Amino acid sequence: MPVAEVIDIDDPADPRVADFRDLNSADRRPDLPGRKGLVIAEGVVVVQRMLASRFPPFALLGVGRRYESLAADLAGVDVPYYRATAEVMAEVVGFHLNRGVLAAARRPPELSVDEALVEARTVAVLEGVNDHENIGSIFRNAAGLGAGAVLFGDRCADPLYRRAVRVSMGHVLRVPFAHLPHWPEGLESLRAKGFQIIALTPDPAAANLATAATGDRVALLLGAEGPGLTEAAMRATDVRARIPMTPGTDSLNVATAAALAFYERVRIS
Amino acid sequence: MPVAEVIDIDDPADPRVADFRDLNSADRRPDLPGRKGLVIAEGVVVVQRMLASRFPPFALLGVGRRYESLAADLAGVDVPYYRATAEVMAEVVGFHLNRGVLAAARRPPELSVDEALVEARTVAVLEGVNDHENIGSIFRNAAGLGAGAVLFGDRCADPLYRRAVRVSMGHVLRVPFAHLPHWPEGLESLRAKGFQIIALTPDPAAANLATAATGDRVALLLGAEGPGLTEAAMRATDVRARIPMTPGTDSLNVATAAALAFYERVRIS
Repeated sequence: MPVAEVIDIDDPADPRVADFRDLNSADRRPDLPGRKGLVIAEGVVVVQRMLASRFPPFALLGVGRRYESLAADLAGVDVPYYRATAEVMAEVVGFHLNRGVLAAARRPPELSVDEALVEARTVAVLEGVNDHENIGSIFRNAAGLGAGAVLFGDRCADPLYRRAVRVSMGHVLRVPFAHLPHWPEGLESLRAKGFQIIALTPDPAAANLATAATGDRVALLLGAEGPGLTEAAMRATDVRARIPMTPGTDSLNVATAAALAFYERVRIS
Repeated sequence: MPVAEVIDIDDPADPRVADFRDLNSADRRPDLPGRKGLVIAEGVVVVQRMLASRFPPFALLGVGRRYESLAADLAGVDVPYYRATAEVMAEVVGFHLNRGVLAAARRPPELSVDEALVEARTVAVLEGVNDHENIGSIFRNAAGLGAGAVLFGDRCADPLYRRAVRVSMGHVLRVPFAHLPHWPEGLESLRAKGFQIIALTPDPAAANLATAATGDRVALLLGAEGPGLTEAAMRATDVRARIPMTPGTDSLNVATAAALAFYERVRIS
């Protein structure tokens, strides 16, 4: 059985770990979509999820102790494990990384909308959600609360950026996602697949979320905190639904709003 | 009518702004409970909430433009507004602060449990929640979703730490909170006030959250992500309730779990 080959790295300048270099650099970081566009997993749990995902890593970099934690997961996986001390790792990546292990994968071609939706009864559709932490949290909440896919409309942040991968606990690697072409007209293709299209809005005149989602398949449109959904996106929906909020407070964080909407779909189960 | 007095600060070493100094210093920061224990509000919205709270500021430090944004809120408020350039502010606080305005308040005596619960039908009771960001998010969600108070059991982080105040959008200054003495035996005092005491747990054998909360007054016990509630706290509750989660995922973030539980109490309204 092939196993991960352990290769000791003593020199932070070793070219074999170039894909893990300068992880926080504004323009050289390897997870920039326009550059190398790699997908970087951090920590044992997220690396395990990457190993079980459609983003198979081509290399790992970590301390010896993390190799031991991952030994069972790495059985049968033919990739190099670059073993280094925490100090050498810190010099490579550019900061002290307390999770102790990284894995790098190349981006496969993105799923089509059809592929992403195969098994989904509940999907989140995002517009203008440009914060990587919110994107990551939405995937984590989708995984935990049974939403089957995430679709991206206009002006959203990259779900495969390192911070989004980390905050999602690796669930961006597992919950299918796709970019919806022709925004917002492309929502029509969801309607054709039988999705009821619901816009989440703080508007008090909207229907209550608890009674709005009547479809067997439901697409929940979420906009960024603050600006919310554009009027064009709103017009392309079937229903506008609100979460009952206390007057005079702010709108909820978009990932929290997503969690409430996902929860509404599974609360009795 | 008294108004905030504008005092120009040109020298970052000016002793009049000492209470805003070294905001990120590990041991000198002014919001450390064991030291000055000040409450620091950042940004126009949070400063407005502080002005309307039981934590009246004794001084503000900000750029000129923020003074103009706050002019109406500061009418009738007799506190100094230390006006400085963004550069001078950055030297005082120790980093560039893009919110442009800060306010500082002293900690008043903490509310008693009785005082915190006066108007509460739904309260969160936290055990071991030691992350300031999670504490802040819980207060934000409580404010938005109508939970009337937050009680602290054992081993929780300080809700008045600067980061908690900021993440809460200032709602730690508005949602009443208190520390429950004698943990977990002190929960009995809630029962005596008519609260049904519900432990949130990922245990699949627990009752479904959607049907568990039957009381008119409900106290929701939440533990830290990962360890969850202690067995001693669990035993002191009336019901154990679970959020329906997808098997094989992680437990939800504690502030997200709190939001779902609060939402369950207001979803039809």
